[in-house]
Amino acid sequence: MKYPSKVLEQAVMAISALPGIGKKSALRLAIHLVQDQNQKSEKLVEALTSLNTNIKHCKKCHIISDNDICDICSSPHRVKDTICVVENLRDVMAIEETQQYSGLYHILGGVISPINGIGPNDLNITDLAHRIASEGIKELIMAISPTIDGDTTIFYLSKVLKNSNVSISTIARGVSFGGELEYADELTLGRSIMSRLPYKNN
Amino acid sequence: MKYPSKVLEQAVMAISALPGIGKKSALRLAIHLVQDQNQKSEKLVEALTSLNTNIKHCKKCHIISDNDICDICSSPHRVKDTICVVENLRDVMAIEETQQYSGLYHILGGVISPINGIGPNDLNITDLAHRIASEGIKELIMAISPTIDGDTTIFYLSKVLKNSNVSISTIARGVSFGGELEYADELTLGRSIMSRLPYKNN
Repeated sequence: MKYPSKVLEQAVMAISALPGIGKKSALRLAIHLVQDQNQKSEKLVEALTSLNTNIKHCKKCHIISDNDICDICSSPHRVKDTICVVENLRDVMAIEETQQYSGLYHILGGVISPINGIGPNDLNITDLAHRIASEGIKELIMAISPTIDGDTTIFYLSKVLKNSNVSISTIARGVSFGGELEYADELTLGRSIMSRLPYKNN
Repeated sequence: MKYPSKVLEQAVMAISALPGIGKKSALRLAIHLVQDQNQKSEKLVEALTSLNTNIKHCKKCHIISDNDICDICSSPHRVKDTICVVENLRDVMAIEETQQYSGLYHILGGVISPINGIGPNDLNITDLAHRIASEGIKELIMAISPTIDGDTTIFYLSKVLKNSNVSISTIARGVSFGGELEYADELTLGRSIMSRLPYKNN
């Protein structure tokens, strides 16, 4: 595509370098920013500059934070002997939304994935082991995606942490609420039968 | 949604202010920018800052440009007595892609749309009339979307420009190439029969 302006072209290139945004969408966004009356573009530049310079990662759990230790790790209201192990920040935010968990977190930064060249050393595993020892952690909840790579990661962690006195659990896997059995895939349905729970009549 | 960082939240707000990007996509993009190793974020800030400060609109045709007069208006290779009237820059770029037009352009900046509160005075119509007189324009090609608002705009322009010696045409409307007749809507099919062309056997 031929652009009428170098400046516009550079903006389109920079925007379309983001994941999931193609050249056409980038052009639409760039033109929108040029024509916008509400200083959206200035605000965006300001927010992104701040993102580049001011963002930190919590030294304990690796959550993105404004401080060296994040709000969750430093909160007096969280249960300090339980860590929920997740892949990334979005998983933390999804679990926080449920309001069903009040312990700490640990972000691995991904899962072990030989096909993508991600080994245990690329993940935040060493300092997880260190935290378990130094913070007196009693339970690790593995909230890792139920995929082959996710299961491999959980298996690896359980091996590495075998000698520490921590109990390891995984989040329940089964059919979704509101889902219909006939549409659940075989693997999920099979597992949900294998890990059936005693019925509680409240 | 609760964000673990104010800086992150502000970035998500600024990104999701763009059209077609929701909070979840904005969060994904912001986290991507934080974690990216290739200085995408710095490049984006640079490109957007340049967009804010260096972009101009051609004083004749309103195309986004790096100079006061755009490359098309200042090119010696363009036909100077024909103007193609379009709604926005993306239409210009789409027509340029076809390589079938070598005249000038004029961007209206939209179409007359009473329901959206856009009247003739909100569009670049006065200076179009001025250009026709001062540049000796012989033909106006209306490349406006075939909608009610588009047709209203063409009708209004034809009234305003009645006394100037310019011939006005509209781009052909009919069934798309590669389209199947049975799937064309009635209005398009009806019009394409009404505006049938003599068959030329080359």
